[in-house]
Amino acid sequence: MDMKMSSMNNLFNPRSVAVIGASENPAKLGFHVMLSLTKGGFPGMVIPINPGSKEILGLKTFPSITELPYEIDLAIVVLPARMVPAIFEECLAKGVKGMVLITAGFKEIEDPEGADLHEQLANIVNRAHVPVIGPNTFGMINLHAKLNASFTPEFSLLEKGIIGLVSQSGGMCHLLSFMAMRDDIGFSKIVGIGNRLNVDFAQMVDYLMQDPDTDVIALYMEGIDRPRQLIHTAKTYRGKKPIIAYKTGIGDIGNRASRSHTGSLAGRGEIYSGAFSQAGILALNDVEAFLDTAKALAASPLPDGAGVAVLSSQAGPGIAAADICQTGGLDAVSFTQETQQRINDILPPLALRTNPVDMGPAWYDSEAVVGILQAVMGDENVAGILLFMMFASANVDSIKGLSFLLKETGQNKPLITCLSAPPGIWDEHVKQLEEAAVLVNFPTPERAARVMVNLNRYRNLMISQW
Amino acid sequence: MDMKMSSMNNLFNPRSVAVIGASENPAKLGFHVMLSLTKGGFPGMVIPINPGSKEILGLKTFPSITELPYEIDLAIVVLPARMVPAIFEECLAKGVKGMVLITAGFKEIEDPEGADLHEQLANIVNRAHVPVIGPNTFGMINLHAKLNASFTPEFSLLEKGIIGLVSQSGGMCHLLSFMAMRDDIGFSKIVGIGNRLNVDFAQMVDYLMQDPDTDVIALYMEGIDRPRQLIHTAKTYRGKKPIIAYKTGIGDIGNRASRSHTGSLAGRGEIYSGAFSQAGILALNDVEAFLDTAKALAASPLPDGAGVAVLSSQAGPGIAAADICQTGGLDAVSFTQETQQRINDILPPLALRTNPVDMGPAWYDSEAVVGILQAVMGDENVAGILLFMMFASANVDSIKGLSFLLKETGQNKPLITCLSAPPGIWDEHVKQLEEAAVLVNFPTPERAARVMVNLNRYRNLMISQW
Repeated sequence: MDMKMSSMNNLFNPRSVAVIGASENPAKLGFHVMLSLTKGGFPGMVIPINPGSKEILGLKTFPSITELPYEIDLAIVVLPARMVPAIFEECLAKGVKGMVLITAGFKEIEDPEGADLHEQLANIVNRAHVPVIGPNTFGMINLHAKLNASFTPEFSLLEKGIIGLVSQSGGMCHLLSFMAMRDDIGFSKIVGIGNRLNVDFAQMVDYLMQDPDTDVIALYMEGIDRPRQLIHTAKTYRGKKPIIAYKTGIGDIGNRASRSHTGSLAGRGEIYSGAFSQAGILALNDVEAFLDTAKALAASPLPDGAGVAVLSSQAGPGIAAADICQTGGLDAVSFTQETQQRINDILPPLALRTNPVDMGPAWYDSEAVVGILQAVMGDENVAGILLFMMFASANVDSIKGLSFLLKETGQNKPLITCLSAPPGIWDEHVKQLEEAAVLVNFPTPERAARVMVNLNRYRNLMISQW
Repeated sequence: MDMKMSSMNNLFNPRSVAVIGASENPAKLGFHVMLSLTKGGFPGMVIPINPGSKEILGLKTFPSITELPYEIDLAIVVLPARMVPAIFEECLAKGVKGMVLITAGFKEIEDPEGADLHEQLANIVNRAHVPVIGPNTFGMINLHAKLNASFTPEFSLLEKGIIGLVSQSGGMCHLLSFMAMRDDIGFSKIVGIGNRLNVDFAQMVDYLMQDPDTDVIALYMEGIDRPRQLIHTAKTYRGKKPIIAYKTGIGDIGNRASRSHTGSLAGRGEIYSGAFSQAGILALNDVEAFLDTAKALAASPLPDGAGVAVLSSQAGPGIAAADICQTGGLDAVSFTQETQQRINDILPPLALRTNPVDMGPAWYDSEAVVGILQAVMGDENVAGILLFMMFASANVDSIKGLSFLLKETGQNKPLITCLSAPPGIWDEHVKQLEEAAVLVNFPTPERAARVMVNLNRYRNLMISQW
């Protein structure tokens, strides 16, 4: 159904939250939801609802939402499935503006009663145009509002960022978040849409396209009930913000598992792939490529062509990346005469000075590296730069110098790198270059090269006519 | 050329090492080589050679190797290319048993003088059957002997292990080592064979096959001068120890860069791929898959069939992995009736209890997880198990219990996992399970699934007839 922006805004930015099924028992999800809300620093009111408790985590607890002396914007429901319809009616009567339904046991179960309950709930909330995240979800997080409406308090450890993640799988949201924590990648919102009572991918894309905190939209999906609605919505906003999608359940086995998981058939990969292209959605095919590409889209300009320069302080990583560039539709272009002359002035004739450039002889010399980088940055044939450097004792000064010199270099072309160093020793230098938005770094040359391929694929999607 | 085992043993296990071109100037590689030898804990004698110094890093320095009052097993040479022939003659006269030639500027340079010098050096050492690592290398490391004969002291931070890495690219050795440090993956030896004066891949495979410290041989290559020699050597030892190879320089661009890097054409990927299969060498195509597969071969039994069980505490990762299993030639087999009954007893009917198994309803219950795992481990249809679990506040007890319960479970089938948790919080539990050799863990479900595919590919290589 269509969701008003104001309803979605209330859902993600509530002033007060009631947890229906709050608990002080760590074996219950209602306990962990309470932890998430209280430990996550949410500045609004948090009200536990449980007829059997007086107080949970130091907060006064009420027997039901009906008797509350406060207005409630968001209700998080963690009760057994059969109790949910009555609770939903109470919530609507109370004027609740949005809900997160963590409970499982609806459409995804074999018993047809589950599907009936699902329909019943949809009818209740759709009548009132109240958006519901779930059922069968861990919840959702709005890092900009410090709202952790999930049963995983650790989501609050994530940095605030501009990537909005919408996922059909809670496991994938957890995995992607743990990966993002390791790499300091931030999110605006993380939404486990679960079995999608009335908030599906289309509604989330519509909302995130208008959300000022979100610049990149990342979708993890297994099956979609209304693919045309998503495609239509994505087309409407085409070019406004990048959308990437990782779709699993492509093989027969995965597809069967997907049906059981979220109650919908996953469907053939090729059908999605064509539809995604038409809608300007960039399809990716594993969690690493998905997160890497989201990170790059959030931090880097797009290339304005397929021409790349491959600069490598040690030749091996450059050769590995060149293979990937070539099969991925990128072009290791010839430099202009001026660029080539500047590189020839810096590097001795024993190095490969054409593209890819083997900076081996200058591997310890940051002025030489930055000189080559600046020449290539200014080259009209070059749309993006891949830079590979491994740092250790003998050449660590080159990265220290790089930090200093690169800050002077304005750049509007993607600089995608694999700068690697022994952990705990010089990682900080690389981190600083990323924080200064000078470059976007990845752990391997292949992942860096695939990111450049994907940035160029996205550019191609945007310029093609449908 | 053929190398006697005793010569290679002396090279990698010297009692005394001379550094010809040692320096106290941190801008010189000869300084960093001295750091590597002294800081790495090498128990033998280290003798710096430099006519301009009396002492380097507190060690008495000699003007030349000729005048030394000691026997020298290994000479590391870090002098300009044109000085090397005379130094080689001095080393042979002194009775040196092996050499590491770090110096670049031989066959890989455009000037034909480089190739001439290379030939000249080869003639000198081959006459005396003295093995040389290099030229154009960072050096080599024998972690079991605490010998760091390289210009990168940080290699000594690596754990001792059973993977022998042989690489044409110093950059790749550095990168792989830094990745391995992050994941506590150990090596027996790391050898940068560079431009291969007389120790090429074939000689290294021959040596490592007989090296008691090495159980897995990992080769990174760009081009090979004598591919038939490698194939022949690998065939001779077929089945004794797994060999994996990552070959780059497959596209035209990479190939061109490879020629410049190490003086040899990389050649078409397909040709290598066929030859590798015949020789029982498992080909891989990026540094992650290369290191992941080496880690698994070092830590896990091989599957004895293509049948896998996919167990997932949250369905999403299982679905992603099932797609990869299916395209990679693995089979999510049907369980025996007995196994299926045990699983049905543990999981409620609302879960997908056939393969892949969605353990969602038991995600917080380690006894249920271990019960399913044990049932599947004992199933005759199952040759390998993929297990995916994401841990956080609500289900952390399940991994704590898993550690305890799994130790009771003997297992002779590969258990390849993606167990992930917020960094710095519960990583230690996963680490303990890996250290107890119960499972082999990877950061994403796709990487875990690809590892199982590659273990099965290796099994297929071993059973096929050529």
